[in-house]
Amino acid sequence: MAPTLNILERLDAGEIVIGDGGFVFALEKRGYVKAGPWTPEAAAEHPEAVRQLHREFLRSGSNVMQTFTFYASDDKLENRGNAQRFTGAQINEAACDLAREVANEGDAMVAGGVSQTPSYLSCKSEAEVKGIFKRQLNVFVKKNVDFMIAEYFEHVEEAEWAVQVLKTSGKPVCASLCIGPDGDLNGVSPGDCAVRLVKAGANIVGINCHFDPMICVKTVKMMKEGVERAGLKAHYMVQPLAYHTPDCNCQGFIDLPEFPFGLEPRILTRWDMHKYAREAFNVGIRFIGGCCGFEPYHIRAVAEELATERGYLPAASVKHGNWGAGLEMHTKPWVRARARRDYWEKLKPASGRPKCPAMSTPDSWGVTKGHADLMQHKEATSLDELKPLFEKAKASH
Amino acid sequence: MAPTLNILERLDAGEIVIGDGGFVFALEKRGYVKAGPWTPEAAAEHPEAVRQLHREFLRSGSNVMQTFTFYASDDKLENRGNAQRFTGAQINEAACDLAREVANEGDAMVAGGVSQTPSYLSCKSEAEVKGIFKRQLNVFVKKNVDFMIAEYFEHVEEAEWAVQVLKTSGKPVCASLCIGPDGDLNGVSPGDCAVRLVKAGANIVGINCHFDPMICVKTVKMMKEGVERAGLKAHYMVQPLAYHTPDCNCQGFIDLPEFPFGLEPRILTRWDMHKYAREAFNVGIRFIGGCCGFEPYHIRAVAEELATERGYLPAASVKHGNWGAGLEMHTKPWVRARARRDYWEKLKPASGRPKCPAMSTPDSWGVTKGHADLMQHKEATSLDELKPLFEKAKASH
Amino acid sequence: MAPTLNILERLDAGEIVIGDGGFVFALEKRGYVKAGPWTPEAAAEHPEAVRQLHREFLRSGSNVMQTFTFYASDDKLENRGNAQRFTGAQINEAACDLAREVANEGDAMVAGGVSQTPSYLSCKSEAEVKGIFKRQLNVFVKKNVDFMIAEYFEHVEEAEWAVQVLKTSGKPVCASLCIGPDGDLNGVSPGDCAVRLVKAGANIVGINCHFDPMICVKTVKMMKEGVERAGLKAHYMVQPLAYHTPDCNCQGFIDLPEFPFGLEPRILTRWDMHKYAREAFNVGIRFIGGCCGFEPYHIRAVAEELATERGYLPAASVKHGNWGAGLEMHTKPWVRARARRDYWEKLKPASGRPKCPAMSTPDSWGVTKGHADLMQHKEATSLDELKPLFEKAKASH
Amino acid sequence: MAPTLNILERLDAGEIVIGDGGFVFALEKRGYVKAGPWTPEAAAEHPEAVRQLHREFLRSGSNVMQTFTFYASDDKLENRGNAQRFTGAQINEAACDLAREVANEGDAMVAGGVSQTPSYLSCKSEAEVKGIFKRQLNVFVKKNVDFMIAEYFEHVEEAEWAVQVLKTSGKPVCASLCIGPDGDLNGVSPGDCAVRLVKAGANIVGINCHFDPMICVKTVKMMKEGVERAGLKAHYMVQPLAYHTPDCNCQGFIDLPEFPFGLEPRILTRWDMHKYAREAFNVGIRFIGGCCGFEPYHIRAVAEELATERGYLPAASVKHGNWGAGLEMHTKPWVRARARRDYWEKLKPASGRPKCPAMSTPDSWGVTKGHADLMQHKEATSLDELKPLFEKAKASH
Repeated sequence: MAPTLNILERLDAGEIVIGDGGFVFALEKRGYVKAGPWTPEAAAEHPEAVRQLHREFLRSGSNVMQTFTFYASDDKLENRGNAQRFTGAQINEAACDLAREVANEGDAMVAGGVSQTPSYLSCKSEAEVKGIFKRQLNVFVKKNVDFMIAEYFEHVEEAEWAVQVLKTSGKPVCASLCIGPDGDLNGVSPGDCAVRLVKAGANIVGINCHFDPMICVKTVKMMKEGVERAGLKAHYMVQPLAYHTPDCNCQGFIDLPEFPFGLEPRILTRWDMHKYAREAFNVGIRFIGGCCGFEPYHIRAVAEELATERGYLPAASVKHGNWGAGLEMHTKPWVRARARRDYWEKLKPASGRPKCPAMSTPDSWGVTKGHADLMQHKEATSLDELKPLFEKAKASH
Repeated sequence: MAPTLNILERLDAGEIVIGDGGFVFALEKRGYVKAGPWTPEAAAEHPEAVRQLHREFLRSGSNVMQTFTFYASDDKLENRGNAQRFTGAQINEAACDLAREVANEGDAMVAGGVSQTPSYLSCKSEAEVKGIFKRQLNVFVKKNVDFMIAEYFEHVEEAEWAVQVLKTSGKPVCASLCIGPDGDLNGVSPGDCAVRLVKAGANIVGINCHFDPMICVKTVKMMKEGVERAGLKAHYMVQPLAYHTPDCNCQGFIDLPEFPFGLEPRILTRWDMHKYAREAFNVGIRFIGGCCGFEPYHIRAVAEELATERGYLPAASVKHGNWGAGLEMHTKPWVRARARRDYWEKLKPASGRPKCPAMSTPDSWGVTKGHADLMQHKEATSLDELKPLFEKAKASH
Repeated sequence: MAPTLNILERLDAGEIVIGDGGFVFALEKRGYVKAGPWTPEAAAEHPEAVRQLHREFLRSGSNVMQTFTFYASDDKLENRGNAQRFTGAQINEAACDLAREVANEGDAMVAGGVSQTPSYLSCKSEAEVKGIFKRQLNVFVKKNVDFMIAEYFEHVEEAEWAVQVLKTSGKPVCASLCIGPDGDLNGVSPGDCAVRLVKAGANIVGINCHFDPMICVKTVKMMKEGVERAGLKAHYMVQPLAYHTPDCNCQGFIDLPEFPFGLEPRILTRWDMHKYAREAFNVGIRFIGGCCGFEPYHIRAVAEELATERGYLPAASVKHGNWGAGLEMHTKPWVRARARRDYWEKLKPASGRPKCPAMSTPDSWGVTKGHADLMQHKEATSLDELKPLFEKAKASH
Repeated sequence: MAPTLNILERLDAGEIVIGDGGFVFALEKRGYVKAGPWTPEAAAEHPEAVRQLHREFLRSGSNVMQTFTFYASDDKLENRGNAQRFTGAQINEAACDLAREVANEGDAMVAGGVSQTPSYLSCKSEAEVKGIFKRQLNVFVKKNVDFMIAEYFEHVEEAEWAVQVLKTSGKPVCASLCIGPDGDLNGVSPGDCAVRLVKAGANIVGINCHFDPMICVKTVKMMKEGVERAGLKAHYMVQPLAYHTPDCNCQGFIDLPEFPFGLEPRILTRWDMHKYAREAFNVGIRFIGGCCGFEPYHIRAVAEELATERGYLPAASVKHGNWGAGLEMHTKPWVRARARRDYWEKLKPASGRPKCPAMSTPDSWGVTKGHADLMQHKEATSLDELKPLFEKAKASH
């Protein structure tokens, strides 16, 4: 069953489309995804867990059920080295079925997603990389998803290839990079990246993952300015981290020392999400969602901030008082006094960790761009063997 | 179907029993519980969401499925003022069925739980308060839960009453207070509280909620010392917050300005949970679980820390490398270098919030103990009306 | 020339007596004292620098010019291993002359000071240790100082010996320990320490150095309660650090990793000093001064806070607007808006160091009390040799 | 008596010239300068205090004794509204005499200093503003200072005028702006500012005050690049704050909420100064000094870092062990273990203030550039009257 309107019709009509949150991080905390490989075999292995998470995002206001197919390309699944109980096709198909099942519970759209591949990083040919995307696309076409998202690309070239493949389906295509204001890993600026993606056929361009909401919105703004300067047209999307990352370098939160098992103190509050949603809206972004770290209540906060513009609250708001109003019945009067907007807007939440700092120094062994070759040295089992190669790489700059 | 051994047999045999995490906070984030009332109608309204959370804790190593009956006494459900679609009995029965269904998937035990009542706070008689507990107990007996937990009591007297009622069932009874080292809200010390609870019939005594793991463990240690000084015997339990609260006053995290919507920066990492589990074990506590803020991966970390003592890893550990080992395959060598225990043990995670402090000042309008009467002024709609009463109360000390 | 009234006459009359700040830290920053030895040879070497610092404290409101004779006992001066250009007598005499010269500029009193000795730490006999104090006292008597201060003692026994020696002069005697609420290094409580010092003959007892103002005031309060419980009478003094030390163990700031060259972020503002002065006054302390870290403007803030009680402002207040009033003429209106008391009272000053924490872990190799013998292993040149001895010492507890 | 070589001869020969620290802040803490007006009447009022501070900087390694004539232009002295006991000429002359007296004690140079004027800010004519500088210059010429410094200018135009006036003396002229990487308050870039100053006749250009050392060094680097791009030649100087200011806007530390009475937690340690000195040297700056917040030990640290390049240690280093070596004799072995370079280089000093943040939000009522007219509204006594004017100004951008 297809939703009433497709995504371009909605965006063209001025609607706000709310995305979902990142599945790999949420399901890692629930016990269904392994940090490191980050592969989505849970779609086939534990469908009840994936279904439940879809349902929570739907309930929180998401208009898009993204298939849980992150890192589900054949080369990635193999590369992870795990003897898989499921084939890539099984995982991709199961993910499509789950997304559609839950989407149908609420007139949401299903988006088939592809992401960056080890084949590109290890310098395989354009044909080979496109073949990888094509195999995932075949499933999406067979399962008749509503539109496509090419997301989490660090190199605009690979994203262009993905867009060109996805475009052959005739369905709307989104292209989303995981870069910041400094541009992709080859230094192509956000504006130039966006222009190239639109020219490759993307209908919606934007940013996901790797940086916090405000940095991502800023980067999409740069993309929008680039597209407009080039006299082109597009819609815009943003699906950031739910972590504060003011201390990132150009490679984002991966290089923070806390990634991925010590990020808790950086998690955004629901009130941070209100600011994010408003800022994204003000910049002209209309497909607004989340990535790693987002939990259902984060998406609900986005939907609540934009409730006036959208004309309705999400289902899960029956379990949430506006701006803390649920505290009005609290026993203690000083807790009742927190049931108001300006209290939560002004709060500077303490970390409870007096021996920890506010910012970290990103960790990158001095390599901040490129060097895909170096980073693929899988055969070098010892880090001690690798360090000198990095020293050499740095020196060559 | 009852589990193979009951909880006292397990503890007497020296087993470690791992509890689950707090359902109200976890389900609030998922969109099924309203912060403020914190009532568990989701057991009847959205059984799939509650079942899924039980399953995730089971998979993470929990041996106890606690019925989702927090604040499910009739007086509390009415007091919340919501027109409920379900009766108290329906909610309590649904919660028992869900807990048993999932417990049966893994030889876990079902614990029926009662918690503090508005009736006690508003100075109803012992008979009335005990009547409230009795109505919940009737459901637990009918559904044949495996043991009882009286938890989240701020006044030892009310906990004693609860224990006396639960004891009539003939099943093992746990009694858990939400107090810190300063004792209950009337100033009864942890040691004296524990002695009274054991004398009232509790088999297992301890602490849950309101304070961070290290403070809770310290408080249970004080209870244990009290019990031993009195020449009594008991088992010990602890189910703390998953939030760092070094700045709490005697009423715990409720009085922190961040409660309940700005606690994110305080969330414990999985590595903090390793330290907690080890410390609880060293102190002699053998029923080790969690309360508000605990997610399934926190319980998994407890189970992983104690895997040697227990002799096995939980099911969810197939999705978790030991001490970050899942990063061994990461593309970037400096991320691979994080796949080791001492890296995560020593990490001081940054908050990413340079404009926020490390600690807060608890908020209590100067009232730190008692004053139940004052706090119940529901008819005073305006906080301005209440403030002078508090000023007077403070002056009277 | 003696001042109009002696210190006991002043205190008996209810006057507030303001002390000066710590000379060794202030002169270390000015280039005249070496951190590590901390000896006061500058009194003889660079009298102009010492005279100027006395004058600045006098101008800031100090009623007491303490002779710059910290660590000026003969055994300490020798022990420091420096070939001294001056004898102990020369240094002590020069210090007395400088203090008297400046005291005479403002009706201030001169206090001759002695402090803890290496002889005590290395277990010399009572007679030997008293001989050390006697040699310093001879100078003070010859130079006719107005009263005596025995300060910076970690063991109450040594302080008693010092008091007994100083008492022979017939002049008023103050006794000030550098301990916190946990008591002296043998675990004697502040209250018991105070009682012993009063019984030994001290007229004024209190605390200096090692902890921040609020901790020191709290400790003096414990001393006062002890003295009153014992039915004795005394006056009270406090001369704390100008550093925030919420993270200290029982040995104070020496064990903080920042001691002594990284303490800057902990320096108290003038507004912190207002709170300190008020708290000390409220507790009943009437001799209120400072120790390490105090600069003249800190003492001025103490004097300004207590200006109403004392009836006058210090001379240096002609260069200081009340509560920031000097900003009233600032060019920028938002800076002008800072010229008010509540602005500075509420300000939570940022560290400007986002990669630094708020608290440290004290460094003590696990040894928190006693072990004077172990700490005196001067012959062990290598720290590696010492570590095992400490491990053994810890194990023996 | 003139020094052996003049400043240009020294710099041309490749020497490092070390400046002094900021007198107004240091003397404010000592009780001789009033924060707000910040005028230097102490040169005439309290010569002993000013002489002593000169001497401490000389002893710490300064090669330049800057006359204490900051804000000593006639218009500024009048504008401050204080009935002065001394004329501008008296203050300027006294300052020259003191600087020369101490310079002669150590072959240091005397620099006569002028700074920005209220006349310029209130839009007086070039002739009037130059007349103000000329009156100060007359004193410097009469007193035969060794060279001139025009410093603390926020508008390059006014600095050019100052340089043109000072140049008429035939002596070397330095020009130092108090701007950051964003340029002067009219948005002229650091590179363009430097070119204009060199063309106006400055021999040495650079930055002082308003920002922390690393930001100032970065800004001087931009000036140097500008000068070199223009094919011009100059020497470079830097005299930054001794406060960490990562959170400044373009107007520097004035706009931080902590200015000027809550800056303590931001004070640089001596080890921060080592990094600063090295970085300034590496960038090619050879006149390296300090401004507000610098104490003598900060300048000593600069001199110690550059001791190898300069060939000698400053006099005050007899009171300072290299990299903490003075701790080698400490009683406690764990304090002795701090007597090494890498300990202090790696230390992340704690603030001791767990309720304070790491960064602030600059305060500027939304006005970040220009608006000199608005800021001069001295007649508007009430801030409430001014706020609307600012709102209007912001709206007009």
